[in-house]
Amino acid sequence: MTRIIGFDPGSRITGYGVIDSSGGKLGYIASGTINADPKTPYLDRLPSIVEGVEEVLQRHQPQAAAIERVFVAANPSAALKLGQVRGIVLGLLILHTVPIYEYSPREIKKMVTGQGNAAKEQVQYMVQKLLCLSAMPGEDAADALAAAISHIRHL
Amino acid sequence: MTRIIGFDPGSRITGYGVIDSSGGKLGYIASGTINADPKTPYLDRLPSIVEGVEEVLQRHQPQAAAIERVFVAANPSAALKLGQVRGIVLGLLILHTVPIYEYSPREIKKMVTGQGNAAKEQVQYMVQKLLCLSAMPGEDAADALAAAISHIRHL
Repeated sequence: MTRIIGFDPGSRITGYGVIDSSGGKLGYIASGTINADPKTPYLDRLPSIVEGVEEVLQRHQPQAAAIERVFVAANPSAALKLGQVRGIVLGLLILHTVPIYEYSPREIKKMVTGQGNAAKEQVQYMVQKLLCLSAMPGEDAADALAAAISHIRHL
Repeated sequence: MTRIIGFDPGSRITGYGVIDSSGGKLGYIASGTINADPKTPYLDRLPSIVEGVEEVLQRHQPQAAAIERVFVAANPSAALKLGQVRGIVLGLLILHTVPIYEYSPREIKKMVTGQGNAAKEQVQYMVQKLLCLSAMPGEDAADALAAAISHIRHL
């Protein structure tokens, strides 16, 4: 059995999803979002992200992490903010000695839906189906779960 | 006595500088750079940054950290990479419960040289003078020390 955590870092919302893989079968463990209050100055938002990521890592003890590769952000300011949140997530994973695997958005869409140019809703729908969830996960959690599923399918 | 650490994060070189302040007097403790091998893929560079920052924090046990505020980077790709390194540094500082203070490049130049538009060499020269260093510190270490000096002068 391997436990994988997927992350979808964002400057306001960071999605995460934890799944177990055993003999090719996927088991949903947990998913959710780590939120940063957009009303506080950005430096004051970071502790809640550190705390949230730490809590998730300590609770679920993943053996590997999957994260979407970012090619380009809208503008330098947004890229810097996104990069900082990614840096927090990556830094804590490294500190916990969790190996990190990156997949492109296209690879993730392809591995989850079969189509590299699938719409966001298709990804959410397939994540729900593949993990036998009773409800459709939110967008950020679904993206994180999709990254984790992609890593298992890639293995 | 207060021990301040300054950081100047960069996607290839992260400068750091540690100084003590006691009754308005500055005492140089250490400075240097944490380097990431530019030849390895960027994800593989991050562990050496995490290790380097962790080592510096554990060795010097700073009570506060100062870092230059970034307004804008050259392009989204550079901003993302810089943001990730900043995120690692900020995340580890938060994890070590070291309070973080940001100063604009202009504030730092002004507090160290008296001029908000000082040249890089003037900053290096004044850092050497203020800390009574026998040699001029490198650019990245000087910027980190300048951030730390600015924080003490700001207090």
